[in-house]
Amino acid sequence: MMQPSHKALVPFVSVDAMMALIHRIGLRPMLRRIADAIEADFLRWEEFDKTPRVAAHCPVGVIELMPTADDTLYAFKYVNGHPKNTRDGLQTVTAFGLLADMHTGYPVLLSEMTLLTALRTAAMSALVARHLAPKGAKVMAMIGNGAQAEFQSLAMAELVGIEEVRLWDTDPGARAKCAGNLRGTGLRVVTCTSAEAAIQGAQVITTCTADKRNATILSDNMVGAGVHVNAIGGDCPGKTELAPGILTRGRVFVEYPPQTRIEGEIQQMPDDFAVTELWRVFAGAQTGRRDAGEITIFDSVGFAIEDFSALRVVRDALEETGLGDRLDLLADPDDPRDLFGMLMRATPA
Amino acid sequence: MMQPSHKALVPFVSVDAMMALIHRIGLRPMLRRIADAIEADFLRWEEFDKTPRVAAHCPVGVIELMPTADDTLYAFKYVNGHPKNTRDGLQTVTAFGLLADMHTGYPVLLSEMTLLTALRTAAMSALVARHLAPKGAKVMAMIGNGAQAEFQSLAMAELVGIEEVRLWDTDPGARAKCAGNLRGTGLRVVTCTSAEAAIQGAQVITTCTADKRNATILSDNMVGAGVHVNAIGGDCPGKTELAPGILTRGRVFVEYPPQTRIEGEIQQMPDDFAVTELWRVFAGAQTGRRDAGEITIFDSVGFAIEDFSALRVVRDALEETGLGDRLDLLADPDDPRDLFGMLMRATPA
Repeated sequence: MMQPSHKALVPFVSVDAMMALIHRIGLRPMLRRIADAIEADFLRWEEFDKTPRVAAHCPVGVIELMPTADDTLYAFKYVNGHPKNTRDGLQTVTAFGLLADMHTGYPVLLSEMTLLTALRTAAMSALVARHLAPKGAKVMAMIGNGAQAEFQSLAMAELVGIEEVRLWDTDPGARAKCAGNLRGTGLRVVTCTSAEAAIQGAQVITTCTADKRNATILSDNMVGAGVHVNAIGGDCPGKTELAPGILTRGRVFVEYPPQTRIEGEIQQMPDDFAVTELWRVFAGAQTGRRDAGEITIFDSVGFAIEDFSALRVVRDALEETGLGDRLDLLADPDDPRDLFGMLMRATPA
Repeated sequence: MMQPSHKALVPFVSVDAMMALIHRIGLRPMLRRIADAIEADFLRWEEFDKTPRVAAHCPVGVIELMPTADDTLYAFKYVNGHPKNTRDGLQTVTAFGLLADMHTGYPVLLSEMTLLTALRTAAMSALVARHLAPKGAKVMAMIGNGAQAEFQSLAMAELVGIEEVRLWDTDPGARAKCAGNLRGTGLRVVTCTSAEAAIQGAQVITTCTADKRNATILSDNMVGAGVHVNAIGGDCPGKTELAPGILTRGRVFVEYPPQTRIEGEIQQMPDDFAVTELWRVFAGAQTGRRDAGEITIFDSVGFAIEDFSALRVVRDALEETGLGDRLDLLADPDDPRDLFGMLMRATPA
């Protein structure tokens, strides 16, 4: 059988190749590249075709497609969220994604995105904290020590200058795992015995827990003046982490309001609850933190443009490193109208 | 580096593997299996989560995602439509798709779907014609002799009993390609010099042209009594093939009205233009063809459930044949919460 032509082959990044790529570039430089790419893409917000993600729900989880495009590139991510998966030794969240050429519709990159989503979520959190956290923030409370925790901590170190991470998780095993992983990264790690203890002295409070319900990870009295809350885990309908009182006392910043109103912490609030769009803050059109005493809240749900940006970074890093494979994903007959002839010529001898 | 565990590996069907699979099963049996699967899935229509496809348009084409799910399986297809691609030696339509387990969110199959879409579109056309074409139909006019033409012809032979195919395309090269490919398939092939000549004596008229505009491939006076029109090519906004008069003289059958009203021939008609849903016809709840003189029109746009069905057939055929590869697409750390640890353990020596 003939080898597929180059047009049929789509650059592919397996999990293995993604890990090799991250090590080649370096995790912290990779987080910085992704944050820079997200900021650059948010600065041209109005060039993107935006839509809330397309979700299929079942009682135990959700599968989502997150597409976006500008004039030249298209991207989408497939991602699931199944909190009970860990009981069966499976990931809560797995993902893969694609970049395609808008002018031909041909995919130009297929990539694992379980790891890449962890990186881009952490990069986005840190990018937002760079704009919103109080000046000189050095201490972060990390509430929820699951798969995101170390990436959040390192991105905050790289982009915000966080030096101390205070860990809390209801599961001691998760705390120990996270503390062990962060040893030797240069961060000062303090394992705490309660959420209240973890937030002592923290200028940034990151919440990232996995229960699919309206939980109160942070109650109103736990969040004092001058704190930036980075709320990652409230990211689908019926899943929130913050007491509503925190949202009214602070200012809430969001990625894409139509999606966040459905999925974020503000699903608890009226439809006209005031929010500030982050792309306007990045562009300087709206003020981020107004004073040292303000409470700022990033109601993070994850938006398709962040995946678009992360995939762009991977595509460029592949060119730079020569890593990655190629996948025979596209039929490419010699005569484009002759799909049938291609099939017949492949008849086994 | 350790080998990825079986949980990390997703069954994958490359173009090459899809061709091998079709040859192993046989093209006509494969078309029949897909038609049977589509019919079975349409008979449980109300069990599916249905949504119009999610499209990103640009001046030269469109990229679409087509998701659907029942209680246990999720499917989506990525597909583009770029009519001018052939000028650059590229396919007008390329596609790939995925099946996933609704209970875990884990993909269970990633497959090329450029070939598979051609098969499922043909299988759906033939399935519908089996319900709607006049009894004893033996002759089909095939207007537009591009990549779909041979698959349409063979599916109609297999499922409807079509014996003669009358070819017409404005491009003589396309006619010759199609006629050559159909030689030896058992079909009587007549290459015609006009669309009018092609429809002489045909009980089924299939239109499948690629221009992205409102064209009149069939004018009103070309369609006489007792004909079934299988209109494939009018499948996105601004792209139609039939004169509106044909739609008012005949009865129009559709897959999923909310999508067809946007994309199909009936985009030319008022929003309340009467249509019959095919799942109701398959179930016997609505009448198909009422008499020998009626004009029936399948306003085909392609619906996500058809891809779902085709992917099911491929999954089962993989199990049966042992064909296909496995792709390292999912991160699978030993401890699901320890994505970071997995990454660190993959540090190059």
